Amino acid sequence: MSERALVSALGARAAELDAADELAGLREQFVLDDVVYLDGNSLGALSAGVPGRVDDVVRRQWGELRIRSWEESGWWTAPERIGDRIAPLVGAAAGQIVVGDSTSVNVFKALVGAVRLAGEGRDEILVDATTFPTDGYIAASAARMTGCELRPVDPDEVTSALGSRTAAVLLNHVDYRTGRRFDLPSLTSAIHAAGAVSVWDLCHSAGALPVGLDEHGVDLAVGCTYKYLNGGPGSPAYLYVRAGLQDRFDSPLPGWNSHADPFGMSPSYAPASGALRGRVGTPDILSMLALEAALEVWDGVSIDSVRAKSLALTDFFLECVSAYVPEGRVESVTPSAHAERGSQVALRCADAGAVMKCLIDNGVVGDFRHPDILRFGFTPLYVGFADTERAARVLAETLS
Amino acid sequence: MSERALVSALGARAAELDAADELAGLREQFVLDDVVYLDGNSLGALSAGVPGRVDDVVRRQWGELRIRSWEESGWWTAPERIGDRIAPLVGAAAGQIVVGDSTSVNVFKALVGAVRLAGEGRDEILVDATTFPTDGYIAASAARMTGCELRPVDPDEVTSALGSRTAAVLLNHVDYRTGRRFDLPSLTSAIHAAGAVSVWDLCHSAGALPVGLDEHGVDLAVGCTYKYLNGGPGSPAYLYVRAGLQDRFDSPLPGWNSHADPFGMSPSYAPASGALRGRVGTPDILSMLALEAALEVWDGVSIDSVRAKSLALTDFFLECVSAYVPEGRVESVTPSAHAERGSQVALRCADAGAVMKCLIDNGVVGDFRHPDILRFGFTPLYVGFADTERAARVLAETLS
Repeated sequence: MSERALVSALGARAAELDAADELAGLREQFVLDDVVYLDGNSLGALSAGVPGRVDDVVRRQWGELRIRSWEESGWWTAPERIGDRIAPLVGAAAGQIVVGDSTSVNVFKALVGAVRLAGEGRDEILVDATTFPTDGYIAASAARMTGCELRPVDPDEVTSALGSRTAAVLLNHVDYRTGRRFDLPSLTSAIHAAGAVSVWDLCHSAGALPVGLDEHGVDLAVGCTYKYLNGGPGSPAYLYVRAGLQDRFDSPLPGWNSHADPFGMSPSYAPASGALRGRVGTPDILSMLALEAALEVWDGVSIDSVRAKSLALTDFFLECVSAYVPEGRVESVTPSAHAERGSQVALRCADAGAVMKCLIDNGVVGDFRHPDILRFGFTPLYVGFADTERAARVLAETLS
Repeated sequence: MSERALVSALGARAAELDAADELAGLREQFVLDDVVYLDGNSLGALSAGVPGRVDDVVRRQWGELRIRSWEESGWWTAPERIGDRIAPLVGAAAGQIVVGDSTSVNVFKALVGAVRLAGEGRDEILVDATTFPTDGYIAASAARMTGCELRPVDPDEVTSALGSRTAAVLLNHVDYRTGRRFDLPSLTSAIHAAGAVSVWDLCHSAGALPVGLDEHGVDLAVGCTYKYLNGGPGSPAYLYVRAGLQDRFDSPLPGWNSHADPFGMSPSYAPASGALRGRVGTPDILSMLALEAALEVWDGVSIDSVRAKSLALTDFFLECVSAYVPEGRVESVTPSAHAERGSQVALRCADAGAVMKCLIDNGVVGDFRHPDILRFGFTPLYVGFADTERAARVLAETLS
């Protein structure tokens, strides 16, 4: 087929796929322009309901009600209320997630908590050797402060590395660089079979695919909210503590917000029951309520539909790249098997930094990951198939 | 003097004091109504420049520029830039403060860091026994995780409690309940003389009175930004690490934002130089930039003028209370000596909870602290002398 015919055929396919897309209408709920935004796995787009809500929080709740808003505007209970809003997206029943702090801080709470749950005699923490770096850095600190040894392992070798010394295992559900999805159910089972405690980082999966925290018996999990959950720049992260473990969860950051009676001002600490135990200090209200507004776009949206569209988008992108880009110029490091794929496509490419700059200048926004990766994130709520075809086409033009 | 004459005389004095107040014009920069707002030591009022700035951050920086804003809108460097804006208010040269996380999380960083700075052979942390509870809870966790013993001591007994075992001392500059100001210079000297490391909590002093961190050789300090700095509900806290200690500061929360090359994505941790070392995860941009806008009201304002007005306000309030309120109905637990007073007046009062509710219903907003304290915070940027006289008058009416 000629290049022109190819473009025409794939363009027509994109139009058909968009027409059949049951999620296509959600795009209107976002503030988007002519750019193809494939960086929602770094910073999700703004949804249209957020600016008005934030303005109300600032002008009325803070400006007029002031201190009364802690009660009257529901500020005090926001961390658990918003946690319950995220819960169904990651397969958790209510009462197990609190929102607040950064992902790094939550990794610390979760890992130290996990080591304490594992109990005496276990003194090793396993961590995904290819993890987003902050998880590894924080895991090293958690190990140092709990008297454990930190052992970075290739994710494929986790099962064989488990043993009677293993206290806790910190894994990513989806790898930030390659977009590879790991087998959360079987890895969690293996961790449990070894008597260890599982901690999953959901930054690159929550909001893009089903997680099934409760179903698969995950112990602790953390995630950010500014990627596929579109909470805004640096919006607060969350901590999941499985209901059955909450009474024994012993946080290394027992701030007053996690006290059983926070306004009793007792000099001695008594932890609250439930997910609240994961709170620390005063919640960051502006960011937290922006996130709450952003989560409203999920009303009535099934995460299974999101996953189906995500796979269709990444399949179609790989197909278009393969059709348009000259052989050998890029190589996908994202697994082709659906079961092993998250919601992004990562292409290894010479001069990836310069290529991404050029793509951005031409209206296709992905990002570059050192040293040679072009990363394209597909957010099914607002990315369509025509966007996807265009991105591949612009990539081919850039590389030729 | 008759009651009516008394009110008339104090009312006239208030008018004179307001007329002579060089800071009186700042009130216009805040969104205030007819209420006398004496709860700025809990949540500072909204300043007029904030809503527009936040709206720009949401709609343009996030909504239009999206990921580009990390660089183009200065998001990435906000923690240290805003830290430098706070620095002169607490007597610190630039490059020693970073903004981010909650006060509780920063207390953890500072105390663990302090114990590590103190070095081997010191295994005791002293903490103010009357501290705001979260500091004590977090100090207990820091002690547990560094192999130290936590020893709560009456602030008046800190000096005699210091010894060769003392690693770190965590003190409040101003007590949250009584409004008592502690002698930061002499206590810091005593801590240093014992070879220990000082950590000061500035929540109730920063923005209300001079702190002099550099001048007095404070080692580490933390504070919130939503009280006298008016940053908004749950706005991020800050961490000060004295320049001379930064190279040895060893954070228990070494997130990727504190890495020497955060985008190098190295699996091994290498700390950044300077105050940056106190950063952890992705900064919470909406709250952080609201704080930055709020700090603009300080342009050209001297903290010494603020202190002078604060003392004049609390003096005048005590005078009006003494004139209006029947003998024996309230008792000030705030020291009368200026050197020992922060920027609030705390009155012990029977049925304090019900009394405060009634005050609020009558347009005077302070707060109640369990079990018997009426707390009135005086923010010199927006509280005037007529407000102060009115608050005392409404209190007297409520109690009669």
